[in-house]
Amino acid sequence: MTEAALASWNDGPAKRAVLDFVASVTTSGSAFVPPADRIATFDNDGTLWVERPTPPQFDFLLRKWGQEAEADPSLAAQEPYKAIVEKDQAFFEGLVTQDPRVVAALEGAMATSWAGTTPDAFDAEVRVWATTVKQPKFGVSYTELVYQPMLELFDLLKTNEFRVFVCSGGGRDFMRVIAEDLWGIYKEDVIGSASAYEYKDGQIVRTAEMLGGLALGPGKPEHIFARTGRLPVFAGGNADVDIEMLETAQFALLVNHDDADREYAYTKAAEASLAKAKERGWTVVSMKNDWKTIFRTEITP
Amino acid sequence: MTEAALASWNDGPAKRAVLDFVASVTTSGSAFVPPADRIATFDNDGTLWVERPTPPQFDFLLRKWGQEAEADPSLAAQEPYKAIVEKDQAFFEGLVTQDPRVVAALEGAMATSWAGTTPDAFDAEVRVWATTVKQPKFGVSYTELVYQPMLELFDLLKTNEFRVFVCSGGGRDFMRVIAEDLWGIYKEDVIGSASAYEYKDGQIVRTAEMLGGLALGPGKPEHIFARTGRLPVFAGGNADVDIEMLETAQFALLVNHDDADREYAYTKAAEASLAKAKERGWTVVSMKNDWKTIFRTEITP
Repeated sequence: MTEAALASWNDGPAKRAVLDFVASVTTSGSAFVPPADRIATFDNDGTLWVERPTPPQFDFLLRKWGQEAEADPSLAAQEPYKAIVEKDQAFFEGLVTQDPRVVAALEGAMATSWAGTTPDAFDAEVRVWATTVKQPKFGVSYTELVYQPMLELFDLLKTNEFRVFVCSGGGRDFMRVIAEDLWGIYKEDVIGSASAYEYKDGQIVRTAEMLGGLALGPGKPEHIFARTGRLPVFAGGNADVDIEMLETAQFALLVNHDDADREYAYTKAAEASLAKAKERGWTVVSMKNDWKTIFRTEITP
Repeated sequence: MTEAALASWNDGPAKRAVLDFVASVTTSGSAFVPPADRIATFDNDGTLWVERPTPPQFDFLLRKWGQEAEADPSLAAQEPYKAIVEKDQAFFEGLVTQDPRVVAALEGAMATSWAGTTPDAFDAEVRVWATTVKQPKFGVSYTELVYQPMLELFDLLKTNEFRVFVCSGGGRDFMRVIAEDLWGIYKEDVIGSASAYEYKDGQIVRTAEMLGGLALGPGKPEHIFARTGRLPVFAGGNADVDIEMLETAQFALLVNHDDADREYAYTKAAEASLAKAKERGWTVVSMKNDWKTIFRTEITP
């Protein structure tokens, strides 16, 4: 382990807990974990990058659906298009609380918007979004708003023969477009809610079906096991929908958004995970106290 | 590339084609492929190990179903149990030709036999099979009957920054038990037909559903894309059900079983792939002429 490990982390209980755990599982002794088992999994929104005022992929989807509703006004009679046209905040707050009616409407729209398209076509749309849309508080692309301390944690884990995966409730294919540049991990190490594809006429084409369920709550360990054949040794998250993934790991890290100046301060949809962290002794990262820097580049609101 | 690359391959057109291709995609020039895109995928049965007289996993399944039919004689009224009890060869030949009636019966039994069990319980059964059952012609475990030249090909590709995946129509979870010892690739790099799992009461448990379709024919590129976000640059197979995977790759290698003395000689269920290889200029490996050694250890019939 080099001196530079976790350089953007303040010396404190969170950094110490991480370094101690990594040392214990990689040193021979009772806590040793064979390299083959060293799987680390991380949530994305709010764990690796800013998820306010809205999870970035959601911004991408709303713009797409707004364009669709403009092109075909008849869509405005149904959700989620109706809520977009009418700027119905209550509807979208149902996403945070996982209101089944809201989730179903979003899944439906997500399925149909790109059905029949190729990965190249979808990827191009994501790239346009990533390079043009600015996050309102910081005035930069969402892709600038990746947490530097988490990238250093990836490096620490990789140096210690962990394989690092991202497992997000967000769309697998959306994240794969940006994973390699943003996180330094290959597309194939991105796990998430996913459309099914079919191979037809020599091409991979997206269908209107999903492959497996949403990677949220119990869906996270389900997707992780399907993808890796294992459950994580190290896991990181920031919200209630990460609880099941965190409880399967030997070491659980929970990012707490408590820095209103440098990022945001909120606990909404993370209340249960914070309570669970206390109960189980998970390592809670205070963005305010544990991190010297927040973003991978120098960015101020 | 060391001198030892493909040491068990005779100098000949197949070895030359492989070495030339790997050199061309890893050297700057018009054929260069960036490391991120260097995905290699291989079928398993008949490509990495002996698939005669029956694909090894099929031997595992038949034994399991035979035991189930013995424990519950009422099962003998339905397929595939009926065919096992009555030793109905015609039924099982339907597997080779992918008879939908046969495939459906087998999928049904596969789904129910382990529904509700944990991965640990399933893995233990595979391990017992792998260490006790002998292949009839060679008198050793199927796991001894892995092709040494293919392991050397894995090494060559890994040395050249390819990520190597196995994508088999056989069961993903069956192969994952043996992948790390047998092929030196991690469980997570094994792709195949798969059961869905659910996370319940803090455990991953197998359901009676499948996650995605069979990884055969068009199912191979579908599974590969779902798993990696890419299609292969290099692919290897040996049968008609590999055609779609092979045609998506820049370099396609087809193993031809033409060595009755050291292994088996047959083209059944590979006729179309051999014709396609000719038409497309795929590299056909003659086991008889291109391989000095067949198995990873010295084994004679």
